[in-house]
Amino acid sequence: MLRPARRGINGITMLLYFLDLAGVAVFAVSGALAAGRLGLDLLGVLVLASLTAIGGGTLRDVLMNRHPVFWMARPTYLLVICAAALGTVLYVQVLPIPAHALLIADALGLALFALSGAQLAEAARLSPIIVVLMGTMTGVAGGVMRDICSNQIPLLLRQDIYASAAIAGIALYLVLKALGLREAWAFWIGVLVVVTLRLSAIFLGWSLPVFQIPKG
Amino acid sequence: MLRPARRGINGITMLLYFLDLAGVAVFAVSGALAAGRLGLDLLGVLVLASLTAIGGGTLRDVLMNRHPVFWMARPTYLLVICAAALGTVLYVQVLPIPAHALLIADALGLALFALSGAQLAEAARLSPIIVVLMGTMTGVAGGVMRDICSNQIPLLLRQDIYASAAIAGIALYLVLKALGLREAWAFWIGVLVVVTLRLSAIFLGWSLPVFQIPKG
Amino acid sequence: MLRPARRGINGITMLLYFLDLAGVAVFAVSGALAAGRLGLDLLGVLVLASLTAIGGGTLRDVLMNRHPVFWMARPTYLLVICAAALGTVLYVQVLPIPAHALLIADALGLALFALSGAQLAEAARLSPIIVVLMGTMTGVAGGVMRDICSNQIPLLLRQDIYASAAIAGIALYLVLKALGLREAWAFWIGVLVVVTLRLSAIFLGWSLPVFQIPKG
Repeated sequence: MLRPARRGINGITMLLYFLDLAGVAVFAVSGALAAGRLGLDLLGVLVLASLTAIGGGTLRDVLMNRHPVFWMARPTYLLVICAAALGTVLYVQVLPIPAHALLIADALGLALFALSGAQLAEAARLSPIIVVLMGTMTGVAGGVMRDICSNQIPLLLRQDIYASAAIAGIALYLVLKALGLREAWAFWIGVLVVVTLRLSAIFLGWSLPVFQIPKG
Repeated sequence: MLRPARRGINGITMLLYFLDLAGVAVFAVSGALAAGRLGLDLLGVLVLASLTAIGGGTLRDVLMNRHPVFWMARPTYLLVICAAALGTVLYVQVLPIPAHALLIADALGLALFALSGAQLAEAARLSPIIVVLMGTMTGVAGGVMRDICSNQIPLLLRQDIYASAAIAGIALYLVLKALGLREAWAFWIGVLVVVTLRLSAIFLGWSLPVFQIPKG
Repeated sequence: MLRPARRGINGITMLLYFLDLAGVAVFAVSGALAAGRLGLDLLGVLVLASLTAIGGGTLRDVLMNRHPVFWMARPTYLLVICAAALGTVLYVQVLPIPAHALLIADALGLALFALSGAQLAEAARLSPIIVVLMGTMTGVAGGVMRDICSNQIPLLLRQDIYASAAIAGIALYLVLKALGLREAWAFWIGVLVVVTLRLSAIFLGWSLPVFQIPKG
């Protein structure tokens, strides 16, 4: 369907592969921490970590008809998830969890998957508004599944900047590319913007104007 | 896969396109109203409106292996969603929301998507019982996703007529067609029946016999 | 995609067909019982029973790009679901529900779908760790959807053995096959192990070590 130059395929494929691995690892940590709060057993930790880690990318691949789905083609993903989840379990036994660890892992996963989802949508020549939506969905889906399965109100719906951070980062990525910046630069600037906005929301209490239905 | 006469394709395609647009718009309104209740920020409103609006049709397309998924092929859908969501936000600033606005928008979306899902399943020559299920799932999925993400008990599961309305409307559509009525007539009668049943449930308190597990 | 010998196809196809039917029937019963607790109307019972019954297999087929999805190709599935759901409704009117009926039906469905999902993933030559994950997801997805739609904390996340039972049964199945046992034997031993572990957790209070985040 998509036929860029050979070098392009390899470059994008490898980049996406490592980004998916990184995103999968941080989301697995956040899923393991959520499982710890729920007091799941050890295999339950693996399941919730896996769900969080592969949720967004799986949605992306199914919607874009990319088969096999990313984690099916290579067992490395699941090994990384197991390592990240078990590492989290062990770490927690000996050292205190840094404050906001779940939120920070979630912010990194959000940023990496949002931009990688956007990049794939772009490669399929979808229009910019659809690229933004696809990237946002890819970024938020894993965390939403984790929160719904943990019976929490999804982070997505709390009042601080969340989907907004993904939308802003992806939009900036598209604008920078349109202005002629190299793709890799635009990509990492986009990631940085998503993470910065999320962390600002968490630590500085930033938020956007809220839509309240007036009473009366 | 499906090869009716040329005129048939265009007619059905155009009809489904406008129905999807209309269904997407009313579900976007209902999603925006739900976001208002939650006090989401403005981009969060867009995300919840989008999820509600494209949820049912996306499920339909993925299950029936229709790619690209409807909203990916044409940016018009997302523009309609943005317009409907922002229009809702602005409207609410100046005028009171009509009572039951969310329920009515939801009823319209349910009817339009239920019948369009059924029509597509029929075009793929699935058997009638499967046509009914596919249509019902297409109709209810967007609202269920909206309710689950808003941490509400899905409308689907409240005790008034909901899935029942979709099932009745689709079944009537199939019966009328089998009796020789023209497809377009059968379609709109089906839509009317779904909306009427839903509104009767809301305003007149209609409901079906309930399955209660006897105590003791 | 997959082309084993003709006899192999027929054998596996027929076995999977009957397993899917059996799994669908027991999950439909569990969905109908859950609907009874919620006091849904009769068509709502059908919808929740259908969702529970086809959820896991649908996820399996979509992820593995198997089209048409299993219940679309043959109306038998939906007829079985309707019969199981209505049978449950009628049964409950005249006889008391056996204690733990929902949990037992759920355990059987979990076991059947976990092993059938694993078998299909194996047939697609996926690596063992992915076979385990795919089987586990196929087994748990229907019940998770039932619980989320019923606004319950998913059984998956309670502290007794659940996903763990599926993982153990699938792993044993793979090990037995690798040791040279015939596929059918390995399959049924796997099913038995999943059911036994689940029932032990329910009736004997078995559980695995829990991952608790230390306070302080």
